[in-house]
Amino acid sequence: MTTLIGLDWGTSSLRAYRIADDGAVLETRASNDGILTVANNDFEATFHRVVGDWLSATSHPVILSGMITSRQGWIELPYVSCPAGGEGLAAALHCHTLNDGRSIHFVTGLSVVGADGVPDVMRGEETQIVGAAADGDERGLVVLPGTHSKWALTEGGQVMHFATFMTGELFALLSKHSILGRMMASEDHDEAAFVQGVAYGRRSDKPAGGLLKRLFGTRAQGLFGSVPANGAHAFLSGLLIGCEIREALACLGDTSAFAHVTILGTQELTALYTVALGQFGLETRVGPDDAAAKGHYAIAKAAGLL
Amino acid sequence: MTTLIGLDWGTSSLRAYRIADDGAVLETRASNDGILTVANNDFEATFHRVVGDWLSATSHPVILSGMITSRQGWIELPYVSCPAGGEGLAAALHCHTLNDGRSIHFVTGLSVVGADGVPDVMRGEETQIVGAAADGDERGLVVLPGTHSKWALTEGGQVMHFATFMTGELFALLSKHSILGRMMASEDHDEAAFVQGVAYGRRSDKPAGGLLKRLFGTRAQGLFGSVPANGAHAFLSGLLIGCEIREALACLGDTSAFAHVTILGTQELTALYTVALGQFGLETRVGPDDAAAKGHYAIAKAAGLL
Repeated sequence: MTTLIGLDWGTSSLRAYRIADDGAVLETRASNDGILTVANNDFEATFHRVVGDWLSATSHPVILSGMITSRQGWIELPYVSCPAGGEGLAAALHCHTLNDGRSIHFVTGLSVVGADGVPDVMRGEETQIVGAAADGDERGLVVLPGTHSKWALTEGGQVMHFATFMTGELFALLSKHSILGRMMASEDHDEAAFVQGVAYGRRSDKPAGGLLKRLFGTRAQGLFGSVPANGAHAFLSGLLIGCEIREALACLGDTSAFAHVTILGTQELTALYTVALGQFGLETRVGPDDAAAKGHYAIAKAAGLL
Repeated sequence: MTTLIGLDWGTSSLRAYRIADDGAVLETRASNDGILTVANNDFEATFHRVVGDWLSATSHPVILSGMITSRQGWIELPYVSCPAGGEGLAAALHCHTLNDGRSIHFVTGLSVVGADGVPDVMRGEETQIVGAAADGDERGLVVLPGTHSKWALTEGGQVMHFATFMTGELFALLSKHSILGRMMASEDHDEAAFVQGVAYGRRSDKPAGGLLKRLFGTRAQGLFGSVPANGAHAFLSGLLIGCEIREALACLGDTSAFAHVTILGTQELTALYTVALGQFGLETRVGPDDAAAKGHYAIAKAAGLL
């Protein structure tokens, strides 16, 4: 029986979950109704179109997370500072009344200030992390690969610290618009080239240089044939993921205490990160499916909505 | 009196020099006839159109450098390995006979293998470096900022080692196509934001992270207002230049012995790099104008063409 409706509403897509009273996901809907595609900012109309038939007269609680609480979203909410977990997010839930009088609840995002004084932010991933942590570890290291990959340290279900890397966006830009894209004869996955790219990304800056050097190094290795045209796409993917992992391990402090890294991502990215993290000697676990729904359930419970 | 004609023929532009017997530049022509724009690969026709009226019956030697010797150019020539200088480039000059029987001479590029085993290449910059070194230092550190910035260590007029950084290309891509570009309210130069960006680029990886982290860090600082929208363009420029300088100093080995860095670039880039290198505590010198022409003259002399 339905107990809760959860929406993970991002920039370019939306996932809606119909959740049972034991937390099980009864039904999932995915659509391209990301916040940037909503006509006239009429989020309420999109909301009814996507999940209207799930809303019964008995009024299940509804909980929404993701970029829907950003400046470009339905309602802009301030970030909650780390450390924070399900309890803190529940305390910061924002209740909003729809035109039909029904109440819905927005989960806001998290912010953190790094040891270098630079801030970082997330909206949506906090709910997935809380959902994944509900399953498991007392202390954990979680990666959510993507356009802007997030790495988080968790403890007792709280996000203690996190950092974001522009890996996916840079890969798309370089593949599409740069001299490296012009090297690429194929977008097919080439495992050997991917592994070679990760190994290049993994090297220390002395003497390999940082990313600016290694991007041109990729070009030069293409000229001499050590990165073949058919493998250039996979090599660049490996290089950027390798650089991300090296950066993450450097800026998140001592990560040697963690027995494994939990990956929360698409199947394709999960497979790539499993290989790449293995090259760094790190064990991996694949996070639960529908981590966002698990997060919605945990936060709703902590807020006393269930 | 004209003694030598020199062409620095690059990917997107061409500069031609009419050079006197003491090495002075009598006349310069700049055009957009880069190698990628030459119709039907008829380089000889473009050559005659640009400098045909300089070629007299008395037949001055002609020397060409740049991407014109790449796979996409007039004649593809193998790289000369570092260390190499004017003598080595003169020995590798490639003589080519035009349809009218006249001989012209191509300068090829340089390659080097870094301490990490990764190759690097240049075509065109070697001639500028030789030209700048003809003016000066016994030992030097030279930067040629641009789409693909080059850093070179020179000694006794030879290029001992060099490294390339994809700074300018990445800046253009990110400004045009990324989430950082969408932050930018203006492309006007903002000196304070530029200096702030260099300072961010200069920090060590622990705990600031590498470039992937700092690109998102730029976005997050924009969200919190510490990088204002009007300064975001200059901040990103500073960040990338700061990262380039940090990388270059890390991968070129011990650069502390160099009293200054010589900059060979456009006025705009020279001004930016002067400020940025100053933030690293490095003194700078502006390289000679027409360094390519000086290089053509030095190489032609070493080859006995003059």
